[in-house]
Parts: sequence; C-alpha cells; structure tokens
Amino acid sequence: MSDEFDAVVERVRERVEPDAAERERLERVADDLRERARAAIADLPVDAEVIQVGSTARDTWLAGDRDIDLFVSFPPEIDREDLESYGLDVGHAVLPEGHEEYAEHPYVKGTRDGFEVDLVPCYAVEDATEIQSAVDRTPFHTEYLAERIDAALASEVRVAKQFLTGIGVYGSDLRTRGFSGYLTELLVHEYGGFRAFAEAAANWHPPVEFDPEDHGRETFDDPLVVIDPTDPERNVAAVCSAEAVARLQHYARDLLDSPREELFYPAEPEPLGADGVREAFERRGTTPVALRFDAPDVVDDQLYPQLDRSLGGVTSELDRRGFDVLRAAAWADETVVLLAELEVAERPAVERHEGPPVHVRDHAAGFYEAYADDDPEADGTYGPFLDGERYVVERPREFETAVEFLESDAVFDVALGAHVESAMESGYAVLAGEDVSALAGEFGVEFARYLDPRP
Amino acid sequence: MSDEFDAVVERVRERVEPDAAERERLERVADDLRERARAAIADLPVDAEVIQVGSTARDTWLAGDRDIDLFVSFPPEIDREDLESYGLDVGHAVLPEGHEEYAEHPYVKGTRDGFEVDLVPCYAVEDATEIQSAVDRTPFHTEYLAERIDAALASEVRVAKQFLTGIGVYGSDLRTRGFSGYLTELLVHEYGGFRAFAEAAANWHPPVEFDPEDHGRETFDDPLVVIDPTDPERNVAAVCSAEAVARLQHYARDLLDSPREELFYPAEPEPLGADGVREAFERRGTTPVALRFDAPDVVDDQLYPQLDRSLGGVTSELDRRGFDVLRAAAWADETVVLLAELEVAERPAVERHEGPPVHVRDHAAGFYEAYADDDPEADGTYGPFLDGERYVVERPREFETAVEFLESDAVFDVALGAHVESAMESGYAVLAGEDVSALAGEFGVEFARYLDPRP
Repeated sequence: MSDEFDAVVERVRERVEPDAAERERLERVADDLRERARAAIADLPVDAEVIQVGSTARDTWLAGDRDIDLFVSFPPEIDREDLESYGLDVGHAVLPEGHEEYAEHPYVKGTRDGFEVDLVPCYAVEDATEIQSAVDRTPFHTEYLAERIDAALASEVRVAKQFLTGIGVYGSDLRTRGFSGYLTELLVHEYGGFRAFAEAAANWHPPVEFDPEDHGRETFDDPLVVIDPTDPERNVAAVCSAEAVARLQHYARDLLDSPREELFYPAEPEPLGADGVREAFERRGTTPVALRFDAPDVVDDQLYPQLDRSLGGVTSELDRRGFDVLRAAAWADETVVLLAELEVAERPAVERHEGPPVHVRDHAAGFYEAYADDDPEADGTYGPFLDGERYVVERPREFETAVEFLESDAVFDVALGAHVESAMESGYAVLAGEDVSALAGEFGVEFARYLDPRP
Repeated sequence: MSDEFDAVVERVRERVEPDAAERERLERVADDLRERARAAIADLPVDAEVIQVGSTARDTWLAGDRDIDLFVSFPPEIDREDLESYGLDVGHAVLPEGHEEYAEHPYVKGTRDGFEVDLVPCYAVEDATEIQSAVDRTPFHTEYLAERIDAALASEVRVAKQFLTGIGVYGSDLRTRGFSGYLTELLVHEYGGFRAFAEAAANWHPPVEFDPEDHGRETFDDPLVVIDPTDPERNVAAVCSAEAVARLQHYARDLLDSPREELFYPAEPEPLGADGVREAFERRGTTPVALRFDAPDVVDDQLYPQLDRSLGGVTSELDRRGFDVLRAAAWADETVVLLAELEVAERPAVERHEGPPVHVRDHAAGFYEAYADDDPEADGTYGPFLDGERYVVERPREFETAVEFLESDAVFDVALGAHVESAMESGYAVLAGEDVSALAGEFGVEFARYLDPRP
C-alpha cells in the first residue's frame, strides 16, 4: 500500500509540476511586469519597491495556474490616500487595460499574456506586527517561506495544494473557509512532506495547535491554530472551519486506506434533471421550499457569509414555527437559491399558548378575560382551560404552511444579510414541493450533490 | 354584590340541607344497623365498638346523599387475619345481602332501606400516629371534627362541599384528585365559613400550608398542605392536584365576581355527535388518533392512575417520534379511549441521525463504514455526509405515521399501566382522522367538553 500511495502521489506530482516552458513564460512575463512597474515608480514623487509574492513567487504554484501577484511597497511614512493613488497610478501604467478592484484598499487587476495579474500597493513596514493594512503582511510571508521551502518541499506543497483543491477545502475565501496557500505551505513544512502531513491530519484531535516560531502569546478558539511565524498575534488558520478540518481528516484517511488519483481530481457529478429532483424529494417524503432572487452584485467574500447568515435566519424561523428543517442549502449563480427541506408541510389552524399560573391573580385574570368570550367556531380560539396550575389557550396560528410564512413580510424579520435583504426587497419567488424541481436547470449539479451527499 | 353572593349561598343552602324527615330516616336506619352490629359482636370471642363515621356521622352530608359508614373497632392486640374474619362476620350479619369489597382490608358493602352502607373493621388504637392500617385513622377524624363543627359550621361545610362538587374537585379518589370531605371540613373550620374560604382561596399562592394543631414536623412538596390534626406526619391534602387547587381558585374568583347557582349545579354539556366531532377536528386542522380497548375490570382508584400513566407514555412516545401532541385525553366507560390530537400527521421517509465527530477516529470510521455503501435509491440512506465536525446520515424512519406506530408492537414498549397493558394485549383498535368521530356514540359529552374546554 505504501507503494500504491507513492505511485499515486508521483502521478499527481507530474500533473501539478509546471514544465520548463511554463516556468520560462512565467518568468519572462513577471520580469516584464516588474520592469514596467519600476518605470512607473520612477515617475512618482516617492520611491517604492516591487515585490513578487504568492505561489508563483515561491515556486509552489500548480501547473496551469496563471496568477502573478506584484506588490508595490511604499515607505510607511506616506499617508493612505497617497498610497492608494500612487498604487493605482502604477497599476494602470503596468496594466493599461486593467480595472480597479477593492480589498483592503483599491488595486488594479488585469491580464497579461494569458496571466491574471494583481498589482497591489502596500507599506514597507519593518516588521509584520507593525502592519498598517492586512496586505502589508504578505511580503513577510513570502520572505519567511522562501528561506524554508526548497525545491523538493515545494513539490510536496504542490501535491498538498492539489489534494486540498480536490477535496474542496483549498482557499481561505469565505465561501470555502479552508486552507490558504500560506497555511498549506506552513503545514507541509511543519511535517516535512505531503504524506507525513496526511498521516498526521488523519489523527488530529482538534484543537490542533502549531507555533513554528514558538512566539505565540494569544489563545484562539479555532479548530486549527497555526501561529503566524511573522506575527505572534495572528492565527493563520483563523478562517478555516471545523468542517474543512473534518473534511481533510476524512479524505486523508480515505487516501491512506485506498490511494487513488480521483481524490485529487474528482469528477463533478452529473447534473440532476427536474424529474430526478422531483422523484428524490418524493422518495424522501419531505417538503422542499425555496426562495429564489437575483444574486446581489457583491464579491463572493461578501456574498457567501450573507447567504450563510440568511439561510440560518430563515431555517431557525422555520424551525421555530414548527416546520422542522431536515437539511438546507444556499446556492448562488445568476440567481440565489435558499433551499430548506421540511419535515413538516403543515401545522394545525391552532397553536397552544400557555398563560400564567392561576395563582398569579391579576396576570391570570387578565389572561383569562382576554380570551374568555372567544368562541371556538367563530374565533378559532379554544379555552382558556386549565392544564395543571396554568391557564392555556389554543389560538389561531399565524402561518399554517411554510409558504405562507415565506411569502409574508415576516420573512424580512429574520436575520438576513444586508445585500440579501435588499435583493429580496426587489422581488423574490417562493417555490415549494414539485415546483422546486424547476431550479434543476440552473442548479442541477448542486441538487445532485445535495441528494447524494456521500463524500 | 355581597347581597347577591349571600342570596346565592342561601339558595344553595336550602338545597343541600337535609330536611327533618331525611334526618329522622337516616337516624333510624343508622341506629338499627348499629344495634345489629352490636348483636353480631356479642357472638365473637373478642369485644369491639361500633363507630359511625363520615359525613352522616358529622351532620355534614348533602341532602340526598345516602352513605352510612360504620366502623367496627377491634382491640389492637388481635392479629390481622382475625380482624379481617371477625369484620366480615359482623358485616355479613348486618348486611346479609351485602358483598365483599377490598380497600386496605376486605369489608362488606350493602344497601339498607335505600342507604349505601359500608361496614369496615379497624383497630382501636390509642393514637392516630399508631395506626396499623389507614382506616384506623378515620374514627380520630370524626372525633376531632365532632368537637369543632357546630350546626352553623356544618351548614357552611355543606355549601362548600356542593361548590367543590359543582366545579369537579370534590373527592380524594384518584380520578378526581381533589378535596376530601375531611379536608373540606378542616378548611371551612380554618376560615370560619364558606365565604371566607372562597375569598382566601381566590388569593392563595401555592404552596399553601396549614397546621391547625401546630404540630407538623415533616415538609411536603404539595401545592396544598394541611397537616392532619390527628397525625403530625400526614398531609391531609396529599392527593390534591395542582390543577384541582387552580380550579378552586379560578371558580372561587368567578363566584365572587358574579355569584350564581349554576356554579354549584352545572349543566352537563350536550353530547357532541359524530358530525360535530369530525367538523371540529377539521376546523382545528389537527389529526386525532385514538386507542380503544375494553375497560379492565378494576376499581376506579386503580384504573384512573393507570390511564394517566398510559396516556403519558403514549403521548411522550408520539412526541419523541415527531408527531407533536397538541392535547390528549383518557376516557373510560365500557371501553377505554386514549385520545391524542396530533399537530403532525406524517413524517418523512428519512430521519437525521448524528454520528460521532470525525476526529474520534475509530468510532468515526466505524460509523462511516456502516453506511458508506448504502445507496440512496436502493436503501433510502443518504450520506454519511459532514455537518461541521460530525458525520451525519439520513436513514429510513421507523414509523412515518402515528397510526403505524400505534398499530405496532412498539406501543407496548411505552410505560403502560399493568391492567391497561393486559387489556390492550387482548386486543385494541386504532382510529385516526375522521374515524375518531365514531367514538362520539359512547363519549359525546367528553368530546363536547374536550372541543369547548372553557370552564
């Protein structure tokens, strides 16, 4: 089995290792970009350094990846406005057809000879603990790893990144909430190779803690804690979710038990058609309901946390109202779908409402009088009657079905993300039961995964 | 309003006060019975005393009540077997057509000139704390009250008893779990009259505690505690339920607010027919289910606690299985009905089943392997999948409807009373939805109360 594992890894390694032509092309483009940036800096009233960062700078990119990240590092004395305007000047000079994006501050993004190029301004601080903005840290990371990741280890990093990509946990974006490139490199360095990393991860008992420079001072409440070697106050794995860690553990064991290349390059499931969706929910005996609306025009790192929040808000309220959500999912493409699969399609016309104990005289009398003259047939109110020491009344329920609730204004009372809320205010559709299958056109792959969720 | 209250009480008093003819007839029959008992005792090898106890002995019976309780009090030295056999000898001599019943020990019950007569043996202990059987206490109660309840107070007691009867909480039997005659007399004596009792009860804050002889040593966890004047270790109100106390409080306030005779003599509701039952449940949007079986042949004090226990067992299990019981009731006549009104008629084919956290490697791997090869379509199992740090699987649910559960052997796994269990083992029917309305023939009044439960 050891041989089999190694054989699989070697096959993956061949696929992820860039060949000489790719390396040469990358180097040529990067050199050219750096030179253009330096020329643009020469026109500025301040000096600045051009630093290549990221996986292409560290020789840990995956073959076919086409990201070049160039940072323009300005003296820490200049103020933020100047930094931003100089940064954009350099960016536009280097990438005349690029456009501006916004992360910590605005930067220019464009393409060059088939490469995706980011040109980001930062401050040249002395130490990573003195950063003025989050991006100032990146050059320190690149420098730290450059001294520690040799060619052999870089090759192991590539295999690890491909594995994490294959199992869906590569990336520290807020949709994936997985392992960043920097984190992956630190872990592979820590364990000395991919296999040792996989074997260790298979046995992790979160919280798992590393402090490569042994300088951590804070405590963190995360399943995985890797103290940043360049900043003792930061957990590099802060964004990594418990589920991403569990997923790594699950697949590390799977790979060690039965090594195979598919884990690194999984096939996307066949999209499920409308009939398949309808039949599956019928077989499960559940009631699917969905909210559909136009996707708000925000970046993924804003969108996905808001979808999580909205889905959580809607499902808690469905639970609270007795429609018992079995499982739920949020999907986004051109449109957003919040899907909740209900165990209970309908509640009675009445709901139990407990009043005060009879002995709390004023309160109890007030409760009793509020309902005493209601008639069961005319008002749909039953009671008040005694249950133990309390008055209880059965009164009309606000929403007998989940659809009634979702179609009402009450849905806006749950915790929705701001952009989700305004997107829904522009209009949303409620689908239920068989009609949900109409979503298969846009989300057939997502339905396939949802309805056969085996990893 | 004071006048109105008094006027109502006076009208009630006239109805509950036995007239001269009734008193005379009672006295004549009681004298005759006592004499016959003494004659029978003369034939025994031991001496014994005949004591009349209960409300007819204390002049607190309600007009038309026809109970005469005679105790035959034997020396405490004789053993239990002799007590029982001598007691039955006297009983049969006094009531040649009577039959034996069994409470603490066997006794003879019969009728005499239209009166229901109980002839019960007991031990003539020195003190109520030295009793050998519960009935030994009764003569002490009669003696205690005889010294304290004069004719005026006896009349107040009668009104109080009629009020408690009217509102359904008179009696310490295990169906009513209300106020015994002795308890009622102690409370009326404590407050000095019916009205003061009602005014006080309207303001009670349970636990309410009395200790007329100021000799209590124990603490009791009951809503109403009245330390027995003849036994410091006993709470006379031990059997009185929180609901009986709340009911007294509710109706005491109602009577004080708008005094009226109907509270003392409520009309039984019109029985609800099958159509009315069906329409009511339709209007409520619930799913009624019922178990029906032949009533076990046991006395009410055995039957009703078992019905409570069985109903509790069945409804907890229905709740646990997701059928959410809105309200339930147990009724007994020739047959027994356990009725549960469900909010949820049906659950999905699958249910969520949480596995261990992934990091608990052996346990997690065992869980994963148990389900990994199941197919959603063929096996109805979905997953295992990851939810946070755990494995979760959706697997086939045991019972999708309450009826399936109630018709299965699993219903015998819930806590049923012993006699209910054996009655059900001889056969039971499960009715659901519209079919429940067929029970209206036998339980029309109960349905009427259930479906319009306003007091």
